[in-house]
Amino acid sequence: MKKTVKDYIRTIADFPHEGILFRDVTSLFADARGFRMAVDQLLHPYAGERIDKVVGLEARGFILGGAIAHQLTKGFVPIRKKGKLPGAVISQAYTLEYGEAVMEMHDDALQPGERVLIVDDLLATGGTCEAGIRLCERLGAEIVGCAFVVDLPELGGRKLLERLGMSVHVLCEFEGA
Amino acid sequence: MKKTVKDYIRTIADFPHEGILFRDVTSLFADARGFRMAVDQLLHPYAGERIDKVVGLEARGFILGGAIAHQLTKGFVPIRKKGKLPGAVISQAYTLEYGEAVMEMHDDALQPGERVLIVDDLLATGGTCEAGIRLCERLGAEIVGCAFVVDLPELGGRKLLERLGMSVHVLCEFEGA
Repeated sequence: MKKTVKDYIRTIADFPHEGILFRDVTSLFADARGFRMAVDQLLHPYAGERIDKVVGLEARGFILGGAIAHQLTKGFVPIRKKGKLPGAVISQAYTLEYGEAVMEMHDDALQPGERVLIVDDLLATGGTCEAGIRLCERLGAEIVGCAFVVDLPELGGRKLLERLGMSVHVLCEFEGA
Repeated sequence: MKKTVKDYIRTIADFPHEGILFRDVTSLFADARGFRMAVDQLLHPYAGERIDKVVGLEARGFILGGAIAHQLTKGFVPIRKKGKLPGAVISQAYTLEYGEAVMEMHDDALQPGERVLIVDDLLATGGTCEAGIRLCERLGAEIVGCAFVVDLPELGGRKLLERLGMSVHVLCEFEGA
């Protein structure tokens, strides 16, 4: 029997580009035991903490964020790519390998002083999560932590988020990103 | 206090196109009580049924699907737009208002005989869900039901899915789609 969350994650070569080793969490999520372990373990550091809302980053962060919000009996707030949210939004640009992208959040999604947990499947350069942090902070929310299933330490995302004062929780690491 | 799931859903005019009344479930998901009620009520018809996997349609179906899979202690399988899944996929085209789109599922995401619940936030024409049904059936899975928060009956999706032999469960309806 597989023993750890990491064992359920498969690696797919050359996606989305040649030379990339893609760490695919769909094989983790598809397994009842793997998915349960991942969601439970993502929450362990926050036991007893006040969390008002769970924020998930599009799109795999929605799967985890929905599960975690339900587990905590709290609301879920999506951060989406530009143009996907129907209401009035605030926007935050971030840097990609080539060029720039924009993440958005509804401008009434969080109230000042609300304590939020940000979740996503994978921490790489941290750019998307940094944009998410800025959006939450612009609405006056306090970020309890940023939780990920996978960290790719060579890409420096964890260090970036910690420099921003974030508490970062990851379940496993992969080298050779 | 708001009383029903429907009360938490806001309507936004002219998104994504002029003349459309967009039924926005993010206001439901952001509310702890609303989100909990929606997830619980989506599951009521299936109490006591054997469900092996929960299938969610990109992207808002991921939020509900993650919560439901966690609640049931089952695995979650995403159906995504073309090009988003890293592994080997099967593809299914479906008709849009103008033109065609393609949904994909990993070709090893379901095993023959597995019983699945398909979930999404909103049932409109039913085109995306029909593509999802075809994908599940091509892998030999049995569909226990298709569950949605919102139905837009004027667009005929429910009738389409019922003609395909599906058991359809919706929490509320809106006219004037």
